[in-house]
This record gives sequence, structure tokens and C-alpha cells, in this order.
Amino acid sequence: MTITYQFRIATTTVGGFFKLLLLWKGSVYKLLFKETIIFAFLYAVISVTYRVGLTKDQRSSFESTVIYLNRYTSLIPVSFVLGFYVSLVVNRWWQQFKNVPWPDRTLFTASCYIRDTSEDGRIIRRTIARYMMFAFILIMRAVSNAVMKRYPTMEHIVDAGFITATELEEYESVNCKYNKFWVPLMWTSSVLAEAHESGQLQSEFGLRLIMEQLADYRDKCSACWIYDWITIPLVYTQVVTIAVYTYFVACIIGRQFLDPTANYDGYEYDLYVPVFTFLQFFFYMGWLKVAEQLINPFGEDDDDFDINWLIDRHMAVSHNNSSFPFEDLVL
Amino acid sequence: MTITYQFRIATTTVGGFFKLLLLWKGSVYKLLFKETIIFAFLYAVISVTYRVGLTKDQRSSFESTVIYLNRYTSLIPVSFVLGFYVSLVVNRWWQQFKNVPWPDRTLFTASCYIRDTSEDGRIIRRTIARYMMFAFILIMRAVSNAVMKRYPTMEHIVDAGFITATELEEYESVNCKYNKFWVPLMWTSSVLAEAHESGQLQSEFGLRLIMEQLADYRDKCSACWIYDWITIPLVYTQVVTIAVYTYFVACIIGRQFLDPTANYDGYEYDLYVPVFTFLQFFFYMGWLKVAEQLINPFGEDDDDFDINWLIDRHMAVSHNNSSFPFEDLVL
Amino acid sequence: MTITYQFRIATTTVGGFFKLLLLWKGSVYKLLFKETIIFAFLYAVISVTYRVGLTKDQRSSFESTVIYLNRYTSLIPVSFVLGFYVSLVVNRWWQQFKNVPWPDRTLFTASCYIRDTSEDGRIIRRTIARYMMFAFILIMRAVSNAVMKRYPTMEHIVDAGFITATELEEYESVNCKYNKFWVPLMWTSSVLAEAHESGQLQSEFGLRLIMEQLADYRDKCSACWIYDWITIPLVYTQVVTIAVYTYFVACIIGRQFLDPTANYDGYEYDLYVPVFTFLQFFFYMGWLKVAEQLINPFGEDDDDFDINWLIDRHMAVSHNNSSFPFEDLVL
Amino acid sequence: MTITYQFRIATTTVGGFFKLLLLWKGSVYKLLFKETIIFAFLYAVISVTYRVGLTKDQRSSFESTVIYLNRYTSLIPVSFVLGFYVSLVVNRWWQQFKNVPWPDRTLFTASCYIRDTSEDGRIIRRTIARYMMFAFILIMRAVSNAVMKRYPTMEHIVDAGFITATELEEYESVNCKYNKFWVPLMWTSSVLAEAHESGQLQSEFGLRLIMEQLADYRDKCSACWIYDWITIPLVYTQVVTIAVYTYFVACIIGRQFLDPTANYDGYEYDLYVPVFTFLQFFFYMGWLKVAEQLINPFGEDDDDFDINWLIDRHMAVSHNNSSFPFEDLVL
Amino acid sequence: MTITYQFRIATTTVGGFFKLLLLWKGSVYKLLFKETIIFAFLYAVISVTYRVGLTKDQRSSFESTVIYLNRYTSLIPVSFVLGFYVSLVVNRWWQQFKNVPWPDRTLFTASCYIRDTSEDGRIIRRTIARYMMFAFILIMRAVSNAVMKRYPTMEHIVDAGFITATELEEYESVNCKYNKFWVPLMWTSSVLAEAHESGQLQSEFGLRLIMEQLADYRDKCSACWIYDWITIPLVYTQVVTIAVYTYFVACIIGRQFLDPTANYDGYEYDLYVPVFTFLQFFFYMGWLKVAEQLINPFGEDDDDFDINWLIDRHMAVSHNNSSFPFEDLVL
Repeated sequence: MTITYQFRIATTTVGGFFKLLLLWKGSVYKLLFKETIIFAFLYAVISVTYRVGLTKDQRSSFESTVIYLNRYTSLIPVSFVLGFYVSLVVNRWWQQFKNVPWPDRTLFTASCYIRDTSEDGRIIRRTIARYMMFAFILIMRAVSNAVMKRYPTMEHIVDAGFITATELEEYESVNCKYNKFWVPLMWTSSVLAEAHESGQLQSEFGLRLIMEQLADYRDKCSACWIYDWITIPLVYTQVVTIAVYTYFVACIIGRQFLDPTANYDGYEYDLYVPVFTFLQFFFYMGWLKVAEQLINPFGEDDDDFDINWLIDRHMAVSHNNSSFPFEDLVL
Repeated sequence: MTITYQFRIATTTVGGFFKLLLLWKGSVYKLLFKETIIFAFLYAVISVTYRVGLTKDQRSSFESTVIYLNRYTSLIPVSFVLGFYVSLVVNRWWQQFKNVPWPDRTLFTASCYIRDTSEDGRIIRRTIARYMMFAFILIMRAVSNAVMKRYPTMEHIVDAGFITATELEEYESVNCKYNKFWVPLMWTSSVLAEAHESGQLQSEFGLRLIMEQLADYRDKCSACWIYDWITIPLVYTQVVTIAVYTYFVACIIGRQFLDPTANYDGYEYDLYVPVFTFLQFFFYMGWLKVAEQLINPFGEDDDDFDINWLIDRHMAVSHNNSSFPFEDLVL
Repeated sequence: MTITYQFRIATTTVGGFFKLLLLWKGSVYKLLFKETIIFAFLYAVISVTYRVGLTKDQRSSFESTVIYLNRYTSLIPVSFVLGFYVSLVVNRWWQQFKNVPWPDRTLFTASCYIRDTSEDGRIIRRTIARYMMFAFILIMRAVSNAVMKRYPTMEHIVDAGFITATELEEYESVNCKYNKFWVPLMWTSSVLAEAHESGQLQSEFGLRLIMEQLADYRDKCSACWIYDWITIPLVYTQVVTIAVYTYFVACIIGRQFLDPTANYDGYEYDLYVPVFTFLQFFFYMGWLKVAEQLINPFGEDDDDFDINWLIDRHMAVSHNNSSFPFEDLVL
Repeated sequence: MTITYQFRIATTTVGGFFKLLLLWKGSVYKLLFKETIIFAFLYAVISVTYRVGLTKDQRSSFESTVIYLNRYTSLIPVSFVLGFYVSLVVNRWWQQFKNVPWPDRTLFTASCYIRDTSEDGRIIRRTIARYMMFAFILIMRAVSNAVMKRYPTMEHIVDAGFITATELEEYESVNCKYNKFWVPLMWTSSVLAEAHESGQLQSEFGLRLIMEQLADYRDKCSACWIYDWITIPLVYTQVVTIAVYTYFVACIIGRQFLDPTANYDGYEYDLYVPVFTFLQFFFYMGWLKVAEQLINPFGEDDDDFDINWLIDRHMAVSHNNSSFPFEDLVL
Repeated sequence: MTITYQFRIATTTVGGFFKLLLLWKGSVYKLLFKETIIFAFLYAVISVTYRVGLTKDQRSSFESTVIYLNRYTSLIPVSFVLGFYVSLVVNRWWQQFKNVPWPDRTLFTASCYIRDTSEDGRIIRRTIARYMMFAFILIMRAVSNAVMKRYPTMEHIVDAGFITATELEEYESVNCKYNKFWVPLMWTSSVLAEAHESGQLQSEFGLRLIMEQLADYRDKCSACWIYDWITIPLVYTQVVTIAVYTYFVACIIGRQFLDPTANYDGYEYDLYVPVFTFLQFFFYMGWLKVAEQLINPFGEDDDDFDINWLIDRHMAVSHNNSSFPFEDLVL
């Protein structure tokens, strides 16, 4: 579920964002503590080996390596490449969310033009809502593990009441090996066309307006699927990952404290714990984790889009929309 | 309330932005003076301790720490990460403002097509305006503390004249646990449909045009709520905050002046007050404050969007729109 | 007036942009020469004082300060923060210009559907143009000093022929304390509705199309006003200004040449004039001036949008549009 | 074919992106291993020559060159220019994909308004689909090698069933030396107009809606072709390439280890293999490869858009759309 | 003419972009070789003077200057400012191209609704095309030298067959001192309105659809002109130019090799030719040339938009559109 924290910082106060550092759920600590332990362990192993386990010659050549690596870590532009890469990922993540389809607009328009308050009108409005939700779930099963888990088979969708068993048969009779999310939307357009013929949706203007919204909805379903198909090129992600990982592999050795008595320049003090290297680790790995979490926003991370919640919300609002008590309204 | 300062710099002059440094309201000084005092206090405590309270050995190991920390503060890319992060926040902040719904366009269109100047026409136009404002307040109560304070209960909204007690009952009879801002918009669409049937809004073209604007309005209400729901991932904000805060924690120690007689390289002078460290503090913390202030633009900071002002403005303009004296107009 | 210089560099040649350095109007020299003189004067005063006015002890502590400041100027990321800030300002500046309303599209559409070439048709078209221009001027008076100077009172607008005295009365009878630019646009919509009733604008399609354009025009007027209301947060501008100004205050002292005989490292030569510091001053202050000039694009700088010119242009084109000699056209 | 890898990182885990480093297809290793071998070979040749093949004087002047080059490699802002350039390319790449036309929306709308389920209706819908696919292939042949290989001649398109031989004649009789993708779209509009006349597409609203979608489709076809015509200016690509290549040419020499006994500052150790230089090579060349791969997204790289797959998909969906069994649907 | 090179790099190969370095047309070499010669010449003059023409004292103070300048060149953030500036220019350049009007969409829509295949219908379609092309040329003459050269006077436009001599008179009788590109578009709207009255364009829907496209076309014409009017502020261009130029003026002196026997730190070797300074020159000046070439994309550079080619293309396609043999089409 998305972590909402804006309300905690509605007003700028002393410390401000400091409060946010104390959160655990969805936090950088939760995401990173395992990696940090591994990193610290490796650093410690090498540190101890250097201090107690090497002969004088080994120490000397180890020291050469440390100095070499330390000098050259500064040549890896980690912050630069992360800045650009995370910008790209964050941007894409938001685009992706904006393309999650909401049936609201279509149903809102439909309820203005299909106003029959008898059971007939209600059925039409409800059928439209059902089919649109079905399309939504078909797409979301393709891109989100969480939704796939909720509706692992078509039968689960029938059980949830989105379609009837007959409609499922109809759906499965369509022979197309590609994602068939558009089938229920074809049905929806059919329902609209028939409602127009039967007079339930008399207005040509209304039909056209609803069709436009429906086509937009369909486009957004497509878009969800496309964003899943065309990802940020693997090469880019690999390049960034390599940069960050080699940086820290180099740091495990290159940031070791050397024996102050060996008189290496810049190694006058032995502080045992390289506080800053850990902070850097936290900082750069955290930045990379931002990308990792956002590159697939439909997963089950703490901060991923909660599509199952959205399905519930869409169901509730659709239901209300289609059975809205117009007749009760007295101006 | 938003701080408007453009008029002060309409023309580029000597000093230019210098004038802006003298403002207090909404200024970086106002936002930062408490933090600055805390920072200065901690720095002073350590400085004094070092100078008068340590034994020779303690001084020596303190000096090692200072030198270590000072060298490594340069490894934290504070300016880099702030640059990218603040870009993201500022961008989002402006998007958020652009999605604040304005009823103007809908009402403007309505007043062109619903032209009856008798009381009947006026009531229709006014009802549309009332319902739209009600939806606006429902959304804004969810995202803005200031609006919630103004209308803490539904009764306050009734008292303010946006809806009648009967309408409130109607509203509360809708059974949906999610934000119900769309209920009054359903009513609005009903009013339009009825006005079409009753002939007050004869034109099919008009109905469709107004419905489109209304659907846009509804979308913007949704968008406001979505921006509040899906925030910038907590991890990112934490990473940035950690970077800035650890930088200054490190500076409190690492920027201490050392005893010039100890002959450390680069510590030949003792200036007592680290002017530049304070400037840096001001500068980087100020940059972070920009993010802190903008990440929740509906709060009560000096520079937040003044939604209550906007409500008043919308009320005034809506009222004028709905009771516009068309009949007085003589070409 | 905007400085147009593209034609000077239509083709890439030797020197290329070099030619642009010779321009004075709207140039960085014109904007900066006063600041440069002040900066140079302060630098010179301190330089002379150091060289002739200080005792040996004073010189020594002055030298400490110079070395300290010089080392730490590099800690202020001026180029970084300016890069991001100016990007934001330039982007906003262009958005602002794109939101300046042009009546052309509305009038163009109107002239296709309201085709009566008699005096009656002409009056309708001209009235639409007049009212739209009136709304434009009302908004522009609020955001631009130049327009306010041209039309300081409502009477000036009447004198310029945009509205009649009767219309002004009508306008002033509307009781609303917020900007009333929308009043003439309400009139316009009324004129259209009446033209539809009277048969001058027979087509429902036409009415709707023109109304849509008019609503867009209204939105752009709003947008102009909003951009003036919600500016880049003061904190951000202050942070950037503080960064640049403190940088150069530090440079006035920190970039002084020290006595070569004192043997400070890196101070072996005394060149008297710090050419590069001046170049930096020019460069960074120039970059800041870009922001200063663009943050309020409706001012009276050399490079600001020339709204008065645009008013003249709109008037000429509107006039031609409304009295277009359709009848003369022979295919 | 596009490499899809999001599903591998649906949830943030320990190691996270690390898993991605093990992929070969579409990976940076696959793209770079040849270049790496060349680079390593050249480095080794020079290294061996220096160690065994030079006289003392030659060694000395070689060492001067190494030191000079090593100092100045830091002056080439490779990461900076790559950051901006790759941002531009990635952005453009995504725009390009978004402009790949999908016939879905047009066909979806058509199937709502052309509902005749007899053979006549089916033929109309199928003809529309055929012509739209033909236009798509005509454009894609111009921009993608892969499509050109699949349909090297017009006859292949006839054989694939998109057009008949008669239609091909018709197509070739149009005398225009520019890309004629718009010819089949003119046919489509003709089919629609005739369907309107014959009553198969009775609704004026429908005709207009479909025509709008078709015009959008046509625009996207144009856009594909324009993106192919107007590329990122050659100068920019050359500048970036020169920066990266000269950097590594300089590294081949400048990163050689010098004889530690010669006592050059910073050359105290001879590690033989310049691990970091190779990492840098991998990193920067990988970043450049991202650009190289995306600058022409319609090629046949592992990570290019798979247009042939898209053609198959469009064909399947179009076919289903046009012969949708509306009659089977029972509400 | 635009340099198309994507096809050369359709597939990522060894060397990849390397092939592009061998192109001459539109290349950075072609753009820069003159500047490079000047730069090399000046460098050489100073180098020779230093080596043979100075007294010992002069050499000494020259050496001071060299060391001072060399140290401070690093203070000019050339890569930073170029990165941001070129981003802005490239973005604007692409926006500008996207706003070049294409008559296709309007004519495509027109050909669907105006289907009379007799001479009458053809004349209407052709007149629309002619007038639109005339407007296009009027705008393009204002922004592009190349088009101005092709049609230096109105008579050339008449000769090219876009308008008749009578139409030219009509055009010139419109009294407006601003760019009159909108006059032929007014004619076009008139033609459409008359075609509607005469029954050639019976459908109200069609008229409205075509009018909308035409209004978009008009807007794009405006946009072209606006982009030419409001350029990137001169100050910004000057600041960037000053930064780059002063950098290289400083390099001419500051990158001189000093006499190794003088024992200056970092001047131990005399390589005579400052290879890296030349690479930097190439690189930064090349980056600036990117901006120079794109800031006015309608010029006559190798890589500018080829508007004359576009005019030919528009003519050919328009002609085909208006005389499309609808009658030949047999389904």
C-alpha cells in the first residue's frame, strides 16, 4: 500500500522532514537493512584479516591496493548517473499511475444520459460498469502480481460477480492469443448501441460522448499494458547497477583504515568504523532503491500502487453510480 | 497565503533580487531561524568543550575525528541530490495547483445556454454552482487542514449555505465508504438533465458542452485527491533528508577550528566563527525547506495555496455568474 | 520590447554567437554594468587598504581571512543551484507566454459562422472583438505595469474605444471585489446567444464551436492571473540569491592578491586586477539576471513581453477580422 | 524484441537489481564485449611495449606523456555530457514509441457505429482494418529494417492479404514521389463516406467520430516518419562520441602503470591490471550504448521495438474487431 | 537539408557511433575547422613568442600569468552551463518543428466531406489547398531565409501558382501592417462556408470538423511566428557565449607549456602541442555549435529544417488530395 505521509508535514516546522526519518513502513531502513548487514560484515571480515591475519609483505601489497582503490572510487560518477536515472524512473512511474484507467468518467457521463430509473435502466448502467471492471481486472492481472493473486483464474472473476458464467464462455470463445482486455469493452460498446436503439439512451450526443470516454478508457488499458511491455532499456538499468555496485565493492577494500604507523599520507588516524562510508552506502543504495521500487509500481512493495484497493474503490463507486437514486432528488 | 513578490521586481534594477532578501513573511529566515539557533548552539558547545574542557589526549583524538569528518563531508553530494529532488517537488507542486478545480468554465458555459432570467433559470444556475462548490469543499477538506478547520462538520457546510439540510440528508444516505465528492456532481448532472427535459436547457449541444466541462471538473477533483494519496515515495524523501542532516551533523564536528599551534595542515588560523559553514547551513537547509514547504501545498505555511481565499473567490464569482443581469445588456 | 536576434545567426558561421556579444540593447552588459562598478569599487577599496593602510598585525589577520574565505568559496555550489533555478524560471516564463490569450481563434471561428455582411453582422463581430479586447486589457492591467500605465483608469479604456460609457456603467454595476475580467466575456457569450436567437448565428454547431474557443480564451485570461498570483516560492528565490550574493561578498575579500613576499602557498604573484573573478562575477550574476528578467515577463525590461505592442496587433487583426470583405471574394 | 524484465523485480528484495546483472540477452555485456576486448588488447600492447621494448630515453618521454594525459583526462566532462545527451535520447525514444499508430481506437469506434452483422457490414469493417494496416506497413517499411525485410516488395503485402492486386494497381497509379502511406487512408475515408451514403454508417455523429480517430491515426503515421526524418542533430551525436572516444584513447596511454622505481608521484604501485579503468570503460561506453540503441528504436537490436510482433498483434485484434459476433451477445 | 543518419546505426555494432565520426556534411568538423585554425594560430603565436621573443623578466611575468590563468580556468563551469543551455535549445528546437503547420489533416478531412468528383468539387478542394499553402509560405518567408530567397516577392508566389493575380490584389487590399498570413485562411473559411451553402459540403458536422482543423492550422502558423518573435533571452545566450569564449581565451595563454628548467610545479614536461586543450576546444565549441545551429532552425545550415523541401512535399500531397480519383475506387 502506498505510504501517505504528507499530512505529517502539512506545515513546515522545526526539524520538518526529521519526523519522517522515524517511520519504518516503506522506509529506506526497511528496504536496506539486509544489504547494510552484508556490507558491514564483508567490511569487518577484511578489516580483521588485515589487522591480524597478514604477513608483513601481504600487508604492504594490501595497502597498495587500498590506496589505489580509494583514489579511483572518486572516478565513478555515481551521484551523476543516479540523478539522471532516478529522474527518468520517477517520471515514468508517475506517467504509469496517471494511465491507470478509472471508470468514473464514463459512468458519470452514462448516468446523465441513461436516466431510466426502472430496473431496465439500472441493468444497463450496471452492465456497463461490470464490463469495464472486467477489462480493468484483465489488464491488471497482466501487470500486477497482487491482482493476479486475488483473481488467479477466470472463475474467481465470475465468483466476484464481475461477469456471469455465460459471459465467461462468450469471452473464451474469442480466439485471440493476445491480451483480450478489449473484448468486454466491445461488449460495452454493444450495450450502448443497443441502448440507443431501444431508446434507453436516446440522445445521439449522449452516445457519442459516452463512446469517447469509453475509447479513452480503452486507451488507458492499452497504455498500462504498453508500459509493462516497453520498459526502461535493460542496458541502462545494468549500467547504473554496475556503477553503484562496483563503487561499493571498491569501498569495502578502498575505505579500510591503514596502520597509522605505516605513515601513508591521509592515513594518520585509525577510527575502526568508517562512519562516512556507511552513510554513503545508505545514501547511494537508498537512491538506487528508489528506482528499484518505482520501476515496477504494480508490485507488492510497501510503496507500490495498491491496485486491489483501487478495485474495491472502483466497485463501490461504480455500484453507486449505476443505482443512483435520481428520483429522490428534489430541487 | 501565497507570498506575491513579482511586482517588486517588475523591472530589472541594480541589486535586483537583493530587495527580496529583506522580506520576512514567507522568507527563508522565518523558516530557518530556529534550526539555525539549534545548529549554532551545538557548534558552540562542542567548540567550547574542545577549547577548555578536554585533556591533551582527548584533544588529540578529537582532532583526528575533526580532520576525518571534514575530509569526508565532501563525499556527500548534497547539492546534487537536492537539485534533482527539489526539481521533482517543484514540478509536482505546480501540477498540483493546476489540478485545483475551478468551477468557472462550467458555469460560464451554463450561463450561455441556460438563459432564462426568471427566478426558475436563476435557481437552476445557482443550484449548479452550489453543488459544484459543495464537491470542491468535500475534496478540499480531505487534502487541506485549513479547509477542514473552516468547515469541521457537515453542518458548517449547511450553515455556509452550500447545501440545504435536506440535501445533506440525501448526501448522507449514499452509502459509500470512499470520499463522496462525486455525489453532488451526480446531482448536478441530474439538474442538467432535468433542465433539458423541462426546456430550460433546450439545446442538446449545450447539454453536452456543459456535461463535458462538468466531467473535467470531476476529474480535477479526483486528481486533487490522487495527488494527496500518491506522494513522492517516502524512500526518496528519507534519502534526501538523511543526506542533508548527516552532512550538518558531520559539520558540527568537522568544521571546528583546531588549535593552530598543533600545526595541522589547513588549520593555521582560528577564526572562532565558521561563517561559511553557517552560510552553507542556510543555503542547503533553505533548499530543503523549499521541498518541505511545497511537498504539501495545501497546508498553512506562509507560501501555501490559500484554498480558503479561493473558496471565497469561487463563491463570489459563481454567485455573479448565476444571477447575471442578462436582460440589462443593450448592445 | 523583446530583443529578436535569431535573424543574426540564421546560419552558423565563424564566430557565430560572437556577433551577439556586440549587442547592447537587452544585453548582459546593460543589465550588469552598475553592479560591476560597485563590485569593482569595493574590491579596489579593500585592495588599497590592505596594501597601504594596515599595520603588520592587521595585515596578518587579514591574510588569514583571505585564505580562509578563498578556500571555502568553492563550497558554495553556485553553478549547480543556478542551473536548476534558471531552468525552472525559463520554463515558467515560456509557459506564461503561451498562456497570453489571443482572440484570433475565437474571431476566426466567429467570422466563419456569422457571415452577414450588412452593418448588423459587422456590429456583432465587432462587439465580440471589443469585449474580448476589454477582458484582455483588464487582465493585463493586473499583471503588467506597462499596460497599467497605458490605461491607468477605466476612462482611458473607454477613450480608446474598447467599450462605451454605458458599457462601463454596466461593468461597474457588477459587484465583485475580485478581478472582473470575466464580465465582458459573459457579455460576449450573451451576444452570441442573442445572435443565435436572432438568426445571425444560425448554426448550433457554430455557437458551440465559438463558445468553446471563448471558454478557452477565458481560461487563458485566468491562467495569466494565476501565474501572477502563484509565483516561484519566495524561499527558493531567496536561497538562490543568498548563494550568489554571499559568494561574491566572499570573493571581494577572498580573491585579494596577497603580498608575494609573505610566501603564502598559491600567492606567489600579484596581478593587481583579478581578471577571473570579474569574469566569474559577470558570468554568475548574468545567469542570475536571466532569472531576474524572466521571473516577471510583463515588466518593462528590454527583453520583456511587449504587451502593449500585442494590444495594438490584436486590435488591428480583430478589426480586420470583424469587417472582412467577404463579399469581394470571387473564387 | 524488447527485453521485459520488470516481472523479475516486482518486489524490492535483497540484491534487487543485482539479479538483472546476470541477464545476457539485451545486456550491456553482449553489447560491449567486443569493444572491451579491443580496448584491453590495445592497453596490453602498450603496457608490454613500455615494460620491455623501450630504451631509457623513450621510457622517460613515454612517462611524461602518461602523466600529462592522466592529468588532463579529468578535464573531459564525460559524465556530464552523457547525462544530458542520454536524457534527450531516452525522452525521444519514448515519444517515438508513443507515436507508433495503433488502429484499435478507430476500429473500436467503427464497430460501435457500423453494426450490420451481415456479410456487407463485415466487409466494410474488414476493409477499413485492411487499409489501415496497409498504411501502417507502408510507414514502417520506411523506418524499420525489420519490416522492410518482412515485406521487401509490394507483392509481399498483397500476398499477406492486406490489399488485393487491384488495390495495388490503384495505389501505384497515384503519382507522388513522397511516401504514399496516406493513400490507403484516403481510401478508408472514402469507404466511410460511402458507408454513410449507403446507410451502413447512418449516424453523422458516428462518421465524424470515426473520421477524427482516423485523422489521428494518420497524424501518428506522419509523426513516425517525421521522427525518422528529423533526428538529433549530427553535431550533438558527434560531440558526445568524440568526448567518450578521446577519453578512452587517452586512457589507453594515460592509465598505464609506471615503473614504481622511477618515483613519480602517485605511481608508487604497479598493479598491472587497471581494474578501475576497465570499470570506467564499461560504465561510460555502456551509457553511450544506451543512446546508440535507442536513437534508432526500429532496428533489430535486442531491445528495439518489435514492430513485426506489433503487426501480428494488430492483425489479430483487427480481425477480431471487424468480425465480432455482436449477435451472440445476450444481456 | 537535415542530415539523416539513423539508418547508419539501425543496429548496435562494434564501434557503433564511430562510423558517424567519418561524416563530413553537417559534421562538427565542417562547422568548427575555421575556428580551430584561428585558435591554433593564436596559440602558436604566443607559444613561439614565449620561447624566442621574450627577455628573462618578461618570461617570468608571462609565466606568472600562465599559472594564474591555468588555475582559474577550472572555476568557469563551462560544462554545466552548456548542459542546461543546450537542453533548453534542443527542447525549443523540437517544439518549433512540431509547430510547423502541415495542411494534411485539414485536406484529409475536407476530402471526406467534400466528395463531389466533378470539376466543381475539385476546384473547391484545390482552392482550399492553395490558400493554405499561401498562408504557409507567408509565414515561412517571415521566419526562413531560404523560403524568402525562393519567393522574394509576391509575384513569385503568383507565378508558382499558389494564388492568382486577382487574389493577390485582394490580399494587398487588406490594410494591416502586421503579418497577414491569416488573410488566406479567412478566405479558406469563406470557401468552406460557401461550399456549405451551395451544398457541396452539406454536412454541418463536416463543416465544423474542417473548421476546427483549419483553426489548428492557423494556430500553428501563429506559433511559428511567435517562436521567431520570442527567442531565448539574449542575456542567457550572451552569458553562455561569454563563458565559453573567455574560457578559451584564457586557455590560449593558460595552457602554454612552460620551460621545464624553470621548475614550476606541474610543468615538468614540454609537449609543444597541447593535445587535450584542442580536444576540449573541439568538444566545448562543438557543444556550443549545437546550440548555434538549433537556435534558428529555419536557416540554411546543413542540419536546418528544409522548409523548401517541405513546401514541395506539401504541394505534391495537397494536389493529390484535392484531385483524388474517388470514383475509381471499387470495394
